[in-house]
Amino acid sequence: MGEAAAPLGVELVVADPTPDCPATPVVRDQLVGDFDDEETFRRLAERADVLTYEIELADPDVLERVAEETGTPVHPDPETLRTIEDKLVQKRRLSEAGVPVPAFRAVETAEDLREACEELGYPAMLKARTGGYDGRGNVPVSGPEDIEAAVDDVAGPAMVEEMVDFERELAVMGCRGDGERDTFPVTETIHEEEILRESVAPARASEAVRDRAREVALDVLDVMDGRGVFGIELFQTADDEILLNEIAPRPHNSGHWTIEGCHTSQFEQHVRAVLGMPLGTTEQRDPTVSTNILGDVDERQPAVLYGDDAVFDTDRAHLHWYGKHEVYELRKMGHVTMPGDGERDVDELLADVRELRDGLTFRD
Amino acid sequence: MGEAAAPLGVELVVADPTPDCPATPVVRDQLVGDFDDEETFRRLAERADVLTYEIELADPDVLERVAEETGTPVHPDPETLRTIEDKLVQKRRLSEAGVPVPAFRAVETAEDLREACEELGYPAMLKARTGGYDGRGNVPVSGPEDIEAAVDDVAGPAMVEEMVDFERELAVMGCRGDGERDTFPVTETIHEEEILRESVAPARASEAVRDRAREVALDVLDVMDGRGVFGIELFQTADDEILLNEIAPRPHNSGHWTIEGCHTSQFEQHVRAVLGMPLGTTEQRDPTVSTNILGDVDERQPAVLYGDDAVFDTDRAHLHWYGKHEVYELRKMGHVTMPGDGERDVDELLADVRELRDGLTFRD
Repeated sequence: MGEAAAPLGVELVVADPTPDCPATPVVRDQLVGDFDDEETFRRLAERADVLTYEIELADPDVLERVAEETGTPVHPDPETLRTIEDKLVQKRRLSEAGVPVPAFRAVETAEDLREACEELGYPAMLKARTGGYDGRGNVPVSGPEDIEAAVDDVAGPAMVEEMVDFERELAVMGCRGDGERDTFPVTETIHEEEILRESVAPARASEAVRDRAREVALDVLDVMDGRGVFGIELFQTADDEILLNEIAPRPHNSGHWTIEGCHTSQFEQHVRAVLGMPLGTTEQRDPTVSTNILGDVDERQPAVLYGDDAVFDTDRAHLHWYGKHEVYELRKMGHVTMPGDGERDVDELLADVRELRDGLTFRD
Repeated sequence: MGEAAAPLGVELVVADPTPDCPATPVVRDQLVGDFDDEETFRRLAERADVLTYEIELADPDVLERVAEETGTPVHPDPETLRTIEDKLVQKRRLSEAGVPVPAFRAVETAEDLREACEELGYPAMLKARTGGYDGRGNVPVSGPEDIEAAVDDVAGPAMVEEMVDFERELAVMGCRGDGERDTFPVTETIHEEEILRESVAPARASEAVRDRAREVALDVLDVMDGRGVFGIELFQTADDEILLNEIAPRPHNSGHWTIEGCHTSQFEQHVRAVLGMPLGTTEQRDPTVSTNILGDVDERQPAVLYGDDAVFDTDRAHLHWYGKHEVYELRKMGHVTMPGDGERDVDELLADVRELRDGLTFRD
């Protein structure tokens, strides 16, 4: 976001608990403080025209109080964060608004889960209501024999969803601006172990499916309050229905390809939106694919990437290194994006970035 | 350069005499010090893997001594800077290497200038050997009656050149990497009062002219020492000859369009080159035009830009604001770039950016 904000004449100050966090080299300043530390956010608000957040760990109560005390607005609205951070509240709210979601039930006890699964059928997915990320807090339930262990595992308020037999996962970066809303082209997302591996844009789905995904995303945006980019994750079912999976109230990993793939990146769009500037065009420039660079080591250790020469040596391959000092298993350390050259399709691009990605390692 | 370096995992520290200089929001750190302050550059070198410069005011003697003392290499080679910063030395060196240049003579006295003009013909252009920038230090000589005033005006060692009756001005961003060299597509540059107003890529010249311009640029690169991007300014004469005008040993205003117009920007290319990484592709994505935003006020004053709403409101118009705190007449404050959408040609793009630019002002 710092890279995108500077050319617009917009300066960022970030608050983050980790000293020398990844944003620091490209922003004006960092305040070191926990995400719920009111004093840190008060100091931030006093220096800022607008506050925004890039992580669901931000505390909506703190943000609301700071906004009220300092008069600095927060976008998206903390109420939106409150809705989203609790997966049960999120699903209820969206479902009530007519957004198609997988069937779900609230779960507090093993007995709740058993009853719910009898209605929804097995397998099902038990999800912690709060704090989940990259699949953490999600526990599959294959049959009645998994019930007790699953509830112990999640250890707190939860919800259970029918397991969607999806054909494909999709994501739409949507944006609410000042009286306008728009979406970027529909992205196909490829996960393994519930962690995003690759993003493909445009998604290899029919035009009808992509249109429906965009329609659902716009409906989701209408439920949100405040301005900003939202990462809207969707399922395309076997019979081409679109169901909402999850929402992130911020620029999202599955939209990183927009940096090279669109005239406006999701980060520039977010900056424009939260400041009340006009949204930029979401037009795509070329078919574009990106792949995450994940930690492939067993132990937490200093991050040294090997094999990046091949990335730098490949035309149109763009490395994005996040500057995290340490790597651990499956940590997102960066990504590689490759836009097309007007000739190659996304299958070819995907094969190329996978080959580059498979040549990267943190093991010496 | 800071915006381009960060995704590569490269951090910049800048030295600049102005506290809170434009680079500061997007780099790790700034050292405040004059361009010839050896202690500043020694401290910089001690923190760096490689030193580079973005302004000809850098002092080659200081850079050479610091490199020797600290072992930190400087790219391009300070010897190249020494050659380029003296326009007479630059022209002699290039001419000897077979690069086509306008006819020129050294000038120390009015008598020298008179003799030279008798050979070269009127009008001619008297140029201060060092310190010129954006036309400063250049004085046209229309006839013998201008001789005395021109020499007084330049007030120091100078050179005189035949006035080239050019059809078009061109610029080529060239790059010397580690054992490789390449050029970006040939840019057409439109100057008024010797200050760059617009850049058009590709240049509206025949393919043969563009090929020849690229050939001359590659010859120029062969005369340079060290790695980095060079801005190579050329004349296309009435009979389609290419003559070298001037060289800048750094990313150049006429290459700013590459940020949106190419897969690799001139800034990323410079970072890659000076670090000895492979050069990126110089392939162009779309026809692209950019225009400078120049100070339109008479008095130096705090910089507040009006009219930028129209830029933000126009699809594919990209504002680049440099973050300079003060504006004065003709100061370069930013630029606006517009890449094509696959349909419109550079004439249409140029008309669009001119209209946007004409709507910008620093006058309240």
